[in-house]
Amino acid sequence: MDRHLPPAGRWQLAARAQRMQPSALRELLKVAERPDIISFAGGLPSPYALPVERLQASVERILRHDASGALQYGPSEGYLPLREAIASRLTRQGAGISPAQVLVTTGSQQALDLVARVLIDPGSRVLIETPTYLGAVQALAQYEPVFEEVPADAAGLLPERLDEASMRHARLLYTQPNFQNPTGRTLAHERRIALVSKAMRNGLLLVEDDPYGELVYSGATPPSLLSMAPQGVVHLGSFSKVIAPGLRVGYVVAPDELMLKLLQAKQASDLHTTGITQRLAHALLTDGEYDAHLDAIRQRYRAQCALMLECLAQHMPEGVSWTRPSGGMFLWVTLPAHIDSASLFDDALARGVAFIPGASFHAVAPKANTMRLTFTTATPSQIETGIARLAQAIKARLRNTEACLSVS
Amino acid sequence: MDRHLPPAGRWQLAARAQRMQPSALRELLKVAERPDIISFAGGLPSPYALPVERLQASVERILRHDASGALQYGPSEGYLPLREAIASRLTRQGAGISPAQVLVTTGSQQALDLVARVLIDPGSRVLIETPTYLGAVQALAQYEPVFEEVPADAAGLLPERLDEASMRHARLLYTQPNFQNPTGRTLAHERRIALVSKAMRNGLLLVEDDPYGELVYSGATPPSLLSMAPQGVVHLGSFSKVIAPGLRVGYVVAPDELMLKLLQAKQASDLHTTGITQRLAHALLTDGEYDAHLDAIRQRYRAQCALMLECLAQHMPEGVSWTRPSGGMFLWVTLPAHIDSASLFDDALARGVAFIPGASFHAVAPKANTMRLTFTTATPSQIETGIARLAQAIKARLRNTEACLSVS
Repeated sequence: MDRHLPPAGRWQLAARAQRMQPSALRELLKVAERPDIISFAGGLPSPYALPVERLQASVERILRHDASGALQYGPSEGYLPLREAIASRLTRQGAGISPAQVLVTTGSQQALDLVARVLIDPGSRVLIETPTYLGAVQALAQYEPVFEEVPADAAGLLPERLDEASMRHARLLYTQPNFQNPTGRTLAHERRIALVSKAMRNGLLLVEDDPYGELVYSGATPPSLLSMAPQGVVHLGSFSKVIAPGLRVGYVVAPDELMLKLLQAKQASDLHTTGITQRLAHALLTDGEYDAHLDAIRQRYRAQCALMLECLAQHMPEGVSWTRPSGGMFLWVTLPAHIDSASLFDDALARGVAFIPGASFHAVAPKANTMRLTFTTATPSQIETGIARLAQAIKARLRNTEACLSVS
Repeated sequence: MDRHLPPAGRWQLAARAQRMQPSALRELLKVAERPDIISFAGGLPSPYALPVERLQASVERILRHDASGALQYGPSEGYLPLREAIASRLTRQGAGISPAQVLVTTGSQQALDLVARVLIDPGSRVLIETPTYLGAVQALAQYEPVFEEVPADAAGLLPERLDEASMRHARLLYTQPNFQNPTGRTLAHERRIALVSKAMRNGLLLVEDDPYGELVYSGATPPSLLSMAPQGVVHLGSFSKVIAPGLRVGYVVAPDELMLKLLQAKQASDLHTTGITQRLAHALLTDGEYDAHLDAIRQRYRAQCALMLECLAQHMPEGVSWTRPSGGMFLWVTLPAHIDSASLFDDALARGVAFIPGASFHAVAPKANTMRLTFTTATPSQIETGIARLAQAIKARLRNTEACLSVS
């Protein structure tokens, strides 16, 4: 008997799989879904923002006029009219993009997976802003990079803190410049210029993830990194926040040489994205009502964001601060340094409100005294009640801490 | 300037991406789609087999009664009622499976990708039958294994040719036991018993890919490998051939310890499979007409398979042989040893007929004198005309070869 043989029923996993850890966040989100809980946890669109009637009408048309196209195998690149519509929208927004540069993906999560697969070897250096989108960390981590966190403040990552030697040896830098998940912050225009110029000088590929860019509530969004350097940026987009996440339709725009490899990885991953949902995204994007639909969502979310900010100002005790997003779905709360938001979670849950502890959003060094709040999902009255409850939980924790300090 | 810096606009790719090659097959399939060509090339269902009306009715119901479920984010494991319906169908077919063992995937292509990602390190040994499904080779090859081909004949792979030392050191063995792509062959019952017993004895994980199992036209299909050894088999299934490929809904059944890792990889890959299409697969699987639908497809394909076999017998010259599938979509033609089917492709195309050269279906050592023919897509009259044209192309090639031989 071979002594290296694993015991019956135990299979030898790939090194990357041995490192995979179950997500604590998943369990936490399940709890937050309980009907008695006001949840600021999940990153979901408002149920009132889903264009159900237009989707019903469109799917009926698609299955009547293009059933075979929607139901048979399709090209791995994606449905051509959708790629054309995406390229044309990006071009109107300032980046001159051709449909050949657009690959449709099964949500932008798949785009992250493909980009990571094509670019990351075990041990490759990856620069990532902090805090950052958890799903990106999960996708990238599968391919076993060494993460290096890029410091950031309320105006996004700090280009001057990027080390040029690190940049030259890194495979990519990952960032969400607009209304970032989890902080809601936006990368300032002058920092975009500095980042792009420093990246291009040092041969660093920028991965610009932009699922929230259309959800702008005040001011103008600075130009995309893609528009500044189309040959040096991989740009990810999604219809999850502006049409519906369940469609699983996103896209990636990449320089030609990378596109070829991304396409091959896409083909090996799932052959192509669902035919029906690609056509639905195309129908909604081009039926002439898309901008009106976006305006309606923006109006709803703008009001909910303003309300949550107002409630925070009204209820939160001294020592608690938060971001003031000009778009997106999230804001980011910083508690006094000694409060661990993970342990606060249970107190908040007992009071009927849920959030996501901020430690989840770091690739390397978690900060325990932070939390992410979603302002899009809950109704206005839930926002009022929920923020009041959350403030009570924080105040109680502060009183306990003071009591402990005075005893000790 | 760092001398290791790549030239501007050239990015350092992961080793796996450097190895990725553009698929010649894709170009060939594009040519085969020309409307003037009778195509036996693509592995597509018949357009007449797509249950368009039932899908129309179901999608209307889903968006009326369960819009939020279908359109919001869903669980990475998949839509629970669909997982229950799959488990219950597999259980009726002899494998006692619980819904917790079923992970819904974006087509079974994604299941292949996830299985490979979780099990294969660069250099890992992978056993694979020959010839084999090209999409499996592409999915597995991304993770840089060393393939070892397992010889096979008309009754499938040959368990007695499996080397026990190889089995002990391999991460997995990949096989399609039913109506295999590309040959149409089925693994004989006694070989299944021998394979499972030898694999279990040597700690080898079997990956059983079964997209065609429901498409049976004569006799009874032997029991699945999964039913013989549920703790030693990863089983892949798909709705692409029995409902519609464009839905991109498949599934993987795996032992618990692997399921946990597959789920994490799935989450990082695309969060979850499209909500609408999972519900469509569930609706069609459980509306009471599924077995009647399968019977109708089987009847159509059985007749088309019989017709193609009849036309081959009628038109093909001596020295050409082919498989006689009892199910599935494909049959496999072997030409005289000196005819390269890749160069025959252009002759056939000039006569208005397309197939896939067999060399594409080998992980290691291609055999050039073979081809795959799909009997499901073309109409009966196209099958008659197409096979006659193909036979003419082969006969012309044989005459040319004889002429050359008599000259030399």
